[in-house]
Formats: sequence, C-alpha cells, structure tokens
Amino acid sequence: MSPWKAARVGDPLSAVDTPALVLDLDAFERNLQRLATAVAGTKVRLRPHAKSHKCPEIARRQVALGAVGICCQKVGEAAVFVEAGIADVLVTNEVVGDAKLRQLAALARRARIGVLADHPQQVQALAAAAKAQDASLDVYVEVDVGANRCGVPPGEPAAQLARQIASSAGLRFAGLQCYHGPAQHMRTPQSRADAIAGACEAVRASVRACEAAGLRVERVTGAGTGSFVNELASGVFDELQAGSYVFMDRDYGDNQLGAGDIAFEHALFVRAMVMSRPTADRAVVDAGLKASSVDSGMPTVWQRPELRYAKASDEHGVIATPSQEALALGDAVLLVPGHCDPTVNLYDELICFRGDTVEAVWPIAARGALL
Amino acid sequence: MSPWKAARVGDPLSAVDTPALVLDLDAFERNLQRLATAVAGTKVRLRPHAKSHKCPEIARRQVALGAVGICCQKVGEAAVFVEAGIADVLVTNEVVGDAKLRQLAALARRARIGVLADHPQQVQALAAAAKAQDASLDVYVEVDVGANRCGVPPGEPAAQLARQIASSAGLRFAGLQCYHGPAQHMRTPQSRADAIAGACEAVRASVRACEAAGLRVERVTGAGTGSFVNELASGVFDELQAGSYVFMDRDYGDNQLGAGDIAFEHALFVRAMVMSRPTADRAVVDAGLKASSVDSGMPTVWQRPELRYAKASDEHGVIATPSQEALALGDAVLLVPGHCDPTVNLYDELICFRGDTVEAVWPIAARGALL
Repeated sequence: MSPWKAARVGDPLSAVDTPALVLDLDAFERNLQRLATAVAGTKVRLRPHAKSHKCPEIARRQVALGAVGICCQKVGEAAVFVEAGIADVLVTNEVVGDAKLRQLAALARRARIGVLADHPQQVQALAAAAKAQDASLDVYVEVDVGANRCGVPPGEPAAQLARQIASSAGLRFAGLQCYHGPAQHMRTPQSRADAIAGACEAVRASVRACEAAGLRVERVTGAGTGSFVNELASGVFDELQAGSYVFMDRDYGDNQLGAGDIAFEHALFVRAMVMSRPTADRAVVDAGLKASSVDSGMPTVWQRPELRYAKASDEHGVIATPSQEALALGDAVLLVPGHCDPTVNLYDELICFRGDTVEAVWPIAARGALL
Repeated sequence: MSPWKAARVGDPLSAVDTPALVLDLDAFERNLQRLATAVAGTKVRLRPHAKSHKCPEIARRQVALGAVGICCQKVGEAAVFVEAGIADVLVTNEVVGDAKLRQLAALARRARIGVLADHPQQVQALAAAAKAQDASLDVYVEVDVGANRCGVPPGEPAAQLARQIASSAGLRFAGLQCYHGPAQHMRTPQSRADAIAGACEAVRASVRACEAAGLRVERVTGAGTGSFVNELASGVFDELQAGSYVFMDRDYGDNQLGAGDIAFEHALFVRAMVMSRPTADRAVVDAGLKASSVDSGMPTVWQRPELRYAKASDEHGVIATPSQEALALGDAVLLVPGHCDPTVNLYDELICFRGDTVEAVWPIAARGALL
C-alpha cells in the first residue's frame, strides 16, 4: 500500500488523491433499495454475493435491508465476513484441500456455513472435516444449468450426490446451486430469458430426481445481476445471489434492459487524473490496468461521452480526446470500470462520497482473500 | 487478506495452500545473474524496474548485484522502497497532484529521487514542491521514442523542456527517459531491433538538440526485458530499466529470441489446485482472474503442454484436458501468468521455494501502492 491515504472523511471529492476507488453513496443506496424492493413480498430470498464488494460495511447494509446472509467465493472471504459478524455465509464454490477444509469447518462452529459439491470425493472430505471439528455444514449440489463450468449434470446425477450428502454425518443436504454465469452478460433480454428458461428446465429435472429419491429440495439458489429478474419470476428459484447490482460496471451497463428489468446505476468509479497531455488527441491518466481491471474491456469516462479510454498499460490509461480543450493536465475524471469485482480487489479502501464530500472510508477487508 | 497464511518457511511446496504466488529461487537467481553479467564491463548501468516485483527483498538483491538503484512507476511505490533502504529511486512517470508532489519532495530529502516531465506545468509544479521542502529532484525529460504514450517529441521540444528544468531551482536536468514499451512485446528479434533503431534515432536527435542548447545529457535511460539487448548495444543508452526479467511471464515467453538475446527462465508461478472435475475434457482450478491477471492473455500450465488453461472467470480457471486421467480432483498445477506485473499486485506475499521446500516468504510491500 501507499504509506499515505487517498482521502479522509470530510475531504471534498476534488481533493481525493488518484487513482482511488470511489463510491457514490446516493446511487449505491438506491441500488441496494431497488433489489430489496424487487424481492420484498415474494417467496424468494436475497443472498447477495460479497465477492463483488469484499466489504463488511456493505454486507451489513444488505442484511439490514432483508438479505438472509451473503455469498462468498472463497473460504478466506467467508472468514473475513464471519469475523465481521455476518451470521450466514454460503461459499458458492467447491472447496478442496486440507487447510481450507479445516478453516471452513472451524467457521461452521461460529456461523451458518454453506458450501457446494459436484463430486463424491468432495462430500467425503467435507464430512471428514465437519466430523473432525464436530461442526455441521450445509452442502448444496452444484448443477451445471448451462454455464459449462463446475457442476454435475441435471437430473439423476444431482440426486445421487444429494443422497450421499444427506447420508453423511455432519453434512446437511441444503439444496441446489444453479448459477448460469454466461447468462448475466448476454446483451438482449430475450437471450437472457432463453438461457434462464433452459436453466429452469435443468432445475426442474434435478428437483424431480431428488424427490423421486425421497429427498426434499429445500432451496434452489443462483442468479446474478444480469439475469435475476428471470430467476425471480421463474417459480423454481428460492434465492438470488446478485452481487454487482450495488456498484454496476461498464460490462453490465452494456446489457440491453427489457420491460421487466431493473435499471441499476453506476455507483462505483475510479477517480483518475490527467498526468500527461502529449498531443491534442491523447491524454494520459494515472489509472491503468492495476487501477481498473480490463478483463471485461476498457472503462468508460463517466458523463464524458466525447472521451474514450482507448488503451491501458500497467499504470497508464490513454484517453482519446477530440481536442486540446477537452481535457487539461491535472484534470480529474471518473472512470466506470469494465468489471467491478476484480477492480475492487485492487484496492484496500473504498472512498464513499455524497454530493461533493467524502462521507466515509470503508475497508475492503476481504481484498486479496484468495485462499 | 485471508486470515491464514498460504505457507510457512520449511513447508514442502506440495503443502502450499492455493492459489499462491510462488517463486523458484534457483531460476530467479539465475535470471538476476544473467542480466547483471550482461551489463558488467559495459558503460551501461542497470536500474531494474520494481513495478514488476514490488518487493524490497528483490530490490536489495538487484542492488547487491550491481544495480545503481531501482525504478518505480508510482510515488507510493517509491515511498515503500525508500523506507526499505533503497537509496536511489527513479519514478519513471510524470507526477501530477499536490499530495503526490509533497510526498515526492519529502522522499528526496531521504534518498536520491528522479522523476519525469513532458510538460512545462509539471516542471513548475516540481520546482515549487522541491522549494517548499528545500529538496532537490533529478528530472528527466520523457521523449516519445515510438511508444505513442507520454513524452515530448524528439529533438527541439526535448531541449526546450530540458532548458526549463536546468534553470529551475531545486531541479537538476538529469537526462532523457526514452522507453519504447510496445517494442518489448514484438515477437521477432528483427521487429524489436527495428523499433529500437528508430528509438535510437529519436534519442540522438534529442541529445543533439540539448547539446546545441548548451545542455549536457548526462544519462539516457530506458529499455525493458523484451528489447534491452538492442539498447545495450546501441551506444546511445546509458541505463537499462528491465523489470520482468526476474520472473518472466507467458507473454515475454512468446517472444522469439535472436542470437543476441538472453533466455530468462520462468521463475514465477501461481500454484493452483483442481477443485472441480466435471467432465473428462474439463478441470476447474481455484485460480481465476483475481489470481492471475489475464490482461495479456491466459496463463499456461507449467510443464504440462497437454493441458490448456482455456478460460478465466473471477475465481475459476477452466483447463481443457485430453482425458479423465490427465488431471484429478485435488491435483496441483503451476500456472505461468500471462503478465507478471499485475499478477504480483494481486498478492501480499511471495512464497519462495528451492527444490521442494519453502525457503522464504517475502512481503510484496508495494502491492496496491497506487498513489
């Protein structure tokens, strides 16, 4: 880390050192409320994904607005959130390796902990880890509902693994994890609806197979920011795992919204400054790919459509400018990151502003929690 | 960070928790020695770039082998290295903004500090910052020698800025920064040679213009891991800034080497583990794009050419496998990152091994030093 801080509470936004990760609290709070409102009065619970924000202050606000708990992707993240007082954490991932299994079981003695499985060996290892610490783990069968990543095939394979879980001491068969990642980034509402319709067929086949095996499927969990309106309306999902909705990013902003979609606002930005202005058509800012992850493409320049962030190197961002007057040395811009999750993971603190003033600085406590 | 450590000194490599950033000390030490040997006996000095490793333990070893100091890209990085005892640091970047200029001038009271300029306003601001703290800064004119990023055009514009620096109290005109970034990643020796030949023309024109203005150009500094043999042989460069040579990455490994090139070894890896094995042609490891930066493409699987790291999501890496037997659940692999610099920036510690044993754990002290 730099040995000085980018900002302190009470600073004007214009004084925040760059590059810094800044959060527009008004937009963020509206985003939080929009999703909470969407699920209110339905049978569907909200368990937001904390891999997006890695920030206990945000998790607490999500729980205060009705979320049942959070999702994490890593045991190390779960440990940070349990330490911060979150009582119900689902690790939406398979967990392999002795050290991590020990940590997971230890967490399950302090909070309700869920985890996924898609292989019999994982279930055996989870059971052994739970037994060693006299802990109890909620285990979900991950079903491949179209993402082609992890998960057992739908139907009978899901039921077989569920049976193994249900018959393992220390483990509880908690339901099915049915997340369709690629659907989140399909650009048209129809393509997302089609993908989730396919996922729902896979869910139904899996639920039927479990029921035929005498197992009740207590919960079907999944969905993300791009597609959740479809899972919410499906009648087969019980829990939503959207995470990026709190921040939004350029990539999610590229999705076309349908009549049923909810428009979330860009709330997360990288504040950057022009440090070099070599030509009339090129300005260079101090935020490159170590400041705004480019895995999903370049950031955009907030409310400056005439400026195009054209190229990122490690510590430089080249902005194409229409004229010399468009941007001056020392000018600040707000960048909308291409992908919020890995961008947040580059920072230790989130500088929260309201209007023109820094209102809070929140630690990104699970930054770098890779294990 | 995760609340537990990936490894401790004395652990077998096979027990290092995953994902973790691991360094093969034997290969690393050979890389260090190779570049030190290449410059030994020449008039060219080595000032390795520390933006690649962000690790004081590595900087100390570079200086012990003859480096005059290090380069950094950020004032925040420079502060970490000065604090760690590095006495000569060149920030190879323009620095804009009051907070950073204050920090930079304060560092210049504790160590020899260089910085770049490519605009008269930067020179004025540097002079004001130096004066405010009675400090002295080495200022280099950055010349655009073909990278099309920062820098003044070669020739007279470089001399004009040099004159301004030389006549500013508190500033010393220290030379020319002439770095050609794109040349590092051109794949053939000839294309790199051609690019650096063009850069050398730009250097010569700039030196001539400075000398015509009565200014001695004490030092021409630049070059990176991909192209430095050309700058070294050019007769116009006095200092090399290569950084990635200590680690190497997949992208640099994709360069074809010519007769004069030096073959550095892959020394840096992400240790990852198979956490899901859903199909015979797909294994999923626990290292995705938050564990190995994909800005320069996917990692490769070390010494396993039959395995192809096909796709990264945030916390998953999908490896295409030729058969079920090729990789089992729980198997570990070493990944060669696509790009070492931003990958190192994702970790707090570098797990250093020799043979099969963890020999040291080095803090990546400047990780996240963005300011």
